[in-house]
Amino acid sequence: MNGLDEFGLIERLVQRVPSSGRTVVTGVGDDAAVLAVDPGEQVLVSTDAMVDGVHFLTRTMGFADVGYKAAASTISDIAAMGGEARHLVVALAVPEAARLADLEALYDGIALACRDHEVSVVGGDVIRTGGPMVVTCTVIGAVPAGQAVLRSGARPGDVVFVTGWVGGSGAGLALLLDGTPVAGDVAAELVACHRRPRAQLLAGAILREAGATSLDDISDGLANELNEISRASGVRLRIQATRVPVAPAVRDFARRRGEDPLRYAWYGGEDYQLVGTAPPFAFARALARCESSGVKLTQIGRVDAGDGVIAEYEDGRLEVVEPRGFNHFAPREANEP
Amino acid sequence: MNGLDEFGLIERLVQRVPSSGRTVVTGVGDDAAVLAVDPGEQVLVSTDAMVDGVHFLTRTMGFADVGYKAAASTISDIAAMGGEARHLVVALAVPEAARLADLEALYDGIALACRDHEVSVVGGDVIRTGGPMVVTCTVIGAVPAGQAVLRSGARPGDVVFVTGWVGGSGAGLALLLDGTPVAGDVAAELVACHRRPRAQLLAGAILREAGATSLDDISDGLANELNEISRASGVRLRIQATRVPVAPAVRDFARRRGEDPLRYAWYGGEDYQLVGTAPPFAFARALARCESSGVKLTQIGRVDAGDGVIAEYEDGRLEVVEPRGFNHFAPREANEP
Repeated sequence: MNGLDEFGLIERLVQRVPSSGRTVVTGVGDDAAVLAVDPGEQVLVSTDAMVDGVHFLTRTMGFADVGYKAAASTISDIAAMGGEARHLVVALAVPEAARLADLEALYDGIALACRDHEVSVVGGDVIRTGGPMVVTCTVIGAVPAGQAVLRSGARPGDVVFVTGWVGGSGAGLALLLDGTPVAGDVAAELVACHRRPRAQLLAGAILREAGATSLDDISDGLANELNEISRASGVRLRIQATRVPVAPAVRDFARRRGEDPLRYAWYGGEDYQLVGTAPPFAFARALARCESSGVKLTQIGRVDAGDGVIAEYEDGRLEVVEPRGFNHFAPREANEP
Repeated sequence: MNGLDEFGLIERLVQRVPSSGRTVVTGVGDDAAVLAVDPGEQVLVSTDAMVDGVHFLTRTMGFADVGYKAAASTISDIAAMGGEARHLVVALAVPEAARLADLEALYDGIALACRDHEVSVVGGDVIRTGGPMVVTCTVIGAVPAGQAVLRSGARPGDVVFVTGWVGGSGAGLALLLDGTPVAGDVAAELVACHRRPRAQLLAGAILREAGATSLDDISDGLANELNEISRASGVRLRIQATRVPVAPAVRDFARRRGEDPLRYAWYGGEDYQLVGTAPPFAFARALARCESSGVKLTQIGRVDAGDGVIAEYEDGRLEVVEPRGFNHFAPREANEP
């Protein structure tokens, strides 16, 4: 570790990330960060860990990508509550063989994600491990009291929606692993989806304000997230498969591989778009605000009484969508998209 | 992992820990926890990671001890700000060979620490790793706005104090590693200090209210923490070595080993007592409140103009106390107490 001790290393890495902000009273350097909360707000907290070789592969992602994605994917949990992301703390378990340049690149990726999402790093820990690198991010956000959008509020009659395009991250990973020949711009788009996902904070805030009844971010694939909303809300979600906004680059990629592009949307995961429900009038309001803000919002189905998730295909075929997503404890073959 | 998938495992483990509380609006199970903050409060956040083989050894600690200590040592950072600890999120990287019973024991230890410190678990992540276990805890606390006690407020003329007894954890580790023959009750006390440290939340709150000017918790040894206060405050700390409250069991243990008991206080670390400074009148006020609350508080020195930490011994000898503590990136021999 180039002669740097644990304390010198933390100080050196923290210098690379944004560490101040309106609500940072005391940031990195004391026993705990001190953070201001505006009157009438509640605090949001979520934590996510990523392990080298399980959640990321250094042959498909650079260290800056790993840092960016670790931060953005954690920040995404705040978007999924309709909240404002504010602060990040980062705990890094570092293998003995890690190079300082790699850790600096990782922190540069975290720094870029923080700037893109207007978040500051207010704490952290850097420790040595005899195993692979583990990056654990915890995000602190805020939401007007009583307005956090849970997964449990979907009601029959609601619209089911998704933000942005989906499937890109899973297709990007498949491309990085297999090297399917596609046009350069298609490849670049898919790889960027996989390496540098954006948390949908603006969309989340618009949807909360418009009156969304449930919200979730797509970390484990649309199939899994829809089932979570269905289960938490005690409703059936009826999805029109043709309406799912599979990215054109994913369609192109899947066509070349002779695959159904929808599988990347259902099971690919890590798109970090938002999926949720809203009464029709609230959805219309959200749609108008999204359009004027440049946010893509698509109705993909309806909420019915009942349970589970049903996909309706163009030919009239109905199919139960199982809650299968990327599950890190499942056998590897179950995770192939 | 006994056929449990990642999601089933999280649910099963979380059932073992306290998960509700006055300020928990929405706990584990959604994308993020929703937490209430009382008017006039600021939020405190700190994160700590522990790695098997580096920060704990399964030959000296059971999994319940590991869980207890991971939680308590993180909660201690809130005590060191004079705050009230409220919530914990736990990210666990689990080796493939881990047994479910071990993870349950780990969570039972976390649960006990949460009960002892009146903290609830509001989130977590459980992931697989190809390496050793990594436990990352993030604690959320609160403090009246503007009243967090930093390390930087010590002023010449202040009293330097420490809570409780020190040296027990380092001596407990040495005992567990070497098996020095000592009386059963001495051994039990030292081992308990090492395996089940308590965060000094009550003492921290009393010291904040009384007007302490700096505060730190003893994670890396008194030598290191005193130097942190000295550096952050730009003052010299003059310590009367005989006043340092080295636990009687540590004196007994060190005598049998022919060692200076003070070394366990200076360099042992992990006592999680509080060290800090206060003007004499504030110290007197704190002392009275501590006595009526059953909290041990000891003056060990004075703040002077200057820099560094100076120990004064009975024979008049003065010695600079270097900021050497347990440093996980330092060569192993530097960490022997």
